Amino acid sequence: MLPVVVVHGGAGHIPKDRSEMSTAGVCSAARAGYTILRGGGSSMDAVLEAVSILENNPCFNAGCGSVLNIKGEVEMDAIVMDGLTLGSGAVSAVRNIANPIQLARLVMDKTSHSCLTAEGASQFARSMGVPEVSPESLITEYSHMRWAKNLAPDANPVESQMGKMGTVGAVAVDSEGNIACATSTGGMLNKMEGRVGDTPCIGSGGYADNQVGAVSTTGHGEAIMKVTLARLILFHMEQGQSVEAASDLGLAYMKSRVSGLGGVVSVDPQGRWAARFSSLQMSWAAAQTETLHYGLYVGEHFTQSLG
Amino acid sequence: MLPVVVVHGGAGHIPKDRSEMSTAGVCSAARAGYTILRGGGSSMDAVLEAVSILENNPCFNAGCGSVLNIKGEVEMDAIVMDGLTLGSGAVSAVRNIANPIQLARLVMDKTSHSCLTAEGASQFARSMGVPEVSPESLITEYSHMRWAKNLAPDANPVESQMGKMGTVGAVAVDSEGNIACATSTGGMLNKMEGRVGDTPCIGSGGYADNQVGAVSTTGHGEAIMKVTLARLILFHMEQGQSVEAASDLGLAYMKSRVSGLGGVVSVDPQGRWAARFSSLQMSWAAAQTETLHYGLYVGEHFTQSLG
Repeated sequence: MLPVVVVHGGAGHIPKDRSEMSTAGVCSAARAGYTILRGGGSSMDAVLEAVSILENNPCFNAGCGSVLNIKGEVEMDAIVMDGLTLGSGAVSAVRNIANPIQLARLVMDKTSHSCLTAEGASQFARSMGVPEVSPESLITEYSHMRWAKNLAPDANPVESQMGKMGTVGAVAVDSEGNIACATSTGGMLNKMEGRVGDTPCIGSGGYADNQVGAVSTTGHGEAIMKVTLARLILFHMEQGQSVEAASDLGLAYMKSRVSGLGGVVSVDPQGRWAARFSSLQMSWAAAQTETLHYGLYVGEHFTQSLG
Repeated sequence: MLPVVVVHGGAGHIPKDRSEMSTAGVCSAARAGYTILRGGGSSMDAVLEAVSILENNPCFNAGCGSVLNIKGEVEMDAIVMDGLTLGSGAVSAVRNIANPIQLARLVMDKTSHSCLTAEGASQFARSMGVPEVSPESLITEYSHMRWAKNLAPDANPVESQMGKMGTVGAVAVDSEGNIACATSTGGMLNKMEGRVGDTPCIGSGGYADNQVGAVSTTGHGEAIMKVTLARLILFHMEQGQSVEAASDLGLAYMKSRVSGLGGVVSVDPQGRWAARFSSLQMSWAAAQTETLHYGLYVGEHFTQSLG
């Protein structure tokens, strides 16, 4: 069944006029990741490529298009994890770079640490020659409009959070059986400065282990952290649950125990995969054995040949 | 058996001339936590008090006495978790405050977020009226000497990390059966600016769940993160392992899978507890049923009446 890449573009309620762009975005990211896998590339390279494409797509809440914090600024979190070594790299509250997921990989590859935050992450980016971009280049008209709307006296913050287009992420298994995950986000609309969510937190935003599988998560960050959702789903898989059943068990537990909604993409070492969510929608796509799979609403599963 | 508080002062190799101070420090912290529990106080108040005392003690790597980063500055991480709600609060790379653990609790109690980092955490501290302290007030002669020594051309960074007096933490169960954990650290000697370790990462530096138990960890942060050590031990407890066996299983797995050493204090909902470590030493103390327990080397277990 190997190789496979599965991508998500965030769980939540996606406005109708943006749903086509969102589906097109995850499909193109999954295709790009699959091209790497088909060429014998590694699962790490595949998830990096897929997530970088979603960061560069202004339609998603990561990289360009990130939601704005309370001060109207972009602060981003990202994580990668390598299932062979259990090594990971993450950045939190990082600014002024186009692709936080690539900086997270540099943390993993080039330092003895697992996470760098804020100004320390920026210094590391400069030392690695990562180009700095202007803060404005990451802010879209749409994200600015939503930020301003949410500051208005009659704003309904719950409703505007519902409208968010979430975190992006990917999991993959390559032809050698190595497994990786990557997750990237602008976080939560109108968050406090310096707020760190689940994404860069290992076991919450993602986890990968060649012996068990990998998960990348999206949804209400604080709820995901309460149940360490990615690691929880992998524990269910260790107990013998299928990748789909384990994903559903994790999401159901998060809903019942802490009233949290979200979604995940998951794989097991054999390349079996799942894209599951308890939110209204989650844009997702998977590519395996020359077939592209994708969907947006519960129960939706379209396929298309990649031949 | 309730209530109980268990405290650690860090895993690693503790220089002989500092071992008495270290043991005295954890014993005094456990006594203070137990006084709160005996008076009907909550487990959260007990772990906060115990960890605040360790932060204020220059002998430990947290608060005053924190190890210095590569630039000779103090940046601290801390987390608290409430086993009733699964709510948590954390700060990472925070500067210029005496008690990061108290700021972590304010994040939990006063915001809708779970973690604030760097300058955002400082801004929040100011908004809450937390007094700012001078950077120098957190730096001891000993931590400055070790930092300088480690920069010398003939320095052996592995040896100097070994000499570190680690992270501090506590777990407690109160008379109502509520469970809490708290962990606080200055991190790793000569770390990069902005390095975030396991401590503020839920499931790695600590985890608390009234239905299962609580764990606070210490040791090599990046290894702890690779196996999400706190959550891993609690999964073993969910599978029916005793608090002691689960702690040993978690530590043994970390050693065999990622060659990581460390230590933990753990409790279950009945108030059974363990203080276990794979490092050479860990200063620890526990207080329960009018008895103080403490130790430093493997197999050491002294007791003393609290009556």
